[in-house]
Amino acid sequence: MSQQFDGVSIVTKANVYFDGKVTSRTVLFADGTKKTLGIMLPGEYDFGTDTKEIMEIQAGKLKVLVPGSDWREIDGSGTFEVPANVRFQLVVETVTDYICSYVQE
Amino acid sequence: MSQQFDGVSIVTKANVYFDGKVTSRTVLFADGTKKTLGIMLPGEYDFGTDTKEIMEIQAGKLKVLVPGSDWREIDGSGTFEVPANVRFQLVVETVTDYICSYVQE
Repeated sequence: MSQQFDGVSIVTKANVYFDGKVTSRTVLFADGTKKTLGIMLPGEYDFGTDTKEIMEIQAGKLKVLVPGSDWREIDGSGTFEVPANVRFQLVVETVTDYICSYVQE
Repeated sequence: MSQQFDGVSIVTKANVYFDGKVTSRTVLFADGTKKTLGIMLPGEYDFGTDTKEIMEIQAGKLKVLVPGSDWREIDGSGTFEVPANVRFQLVVETVTDYICSYVQE
């Protein structure tokens, strides 16, 4: 897992969702790709995707429900993918630190 | 106010305080300086400094007490400085998005 991203741009203003229980920062890469680094506090969340997303959990305990799959539990670290243009559900049990990659297909 | 920081490194793992009610991301600049981009949820917090800090509020409503000053209210945007090696108090009323610059003197 990456320790840091080098040679990037970071948008100074945060993305804030669910009254601040989910927040993220946008990181822009030289190749035109984008990731967000985010924090989710305990709670239940429903998100929608525009592009395919790869979610890499760096810390935290949570359950995720992606269309076509069963609920999956992640404890401490793990990765899951979400297709473009779907909704997915999360039940976050402990403070969760994630990296989300947006994949243009 | 900066829209984005370019040509920087960002540490992938978050800094997490107060059960996740305060979190930040560390941004490293080519000149060796460091800033954090952070979120504070409503609550009362007590922090200590190692270096002088310049806190730039990008969004949020809060009160701050820095040693030697009276309580000061910031609503929406504002900047305050905190000397090295002191403690300061914050009462955060709405989700607050900040940039903290660490100043070596």
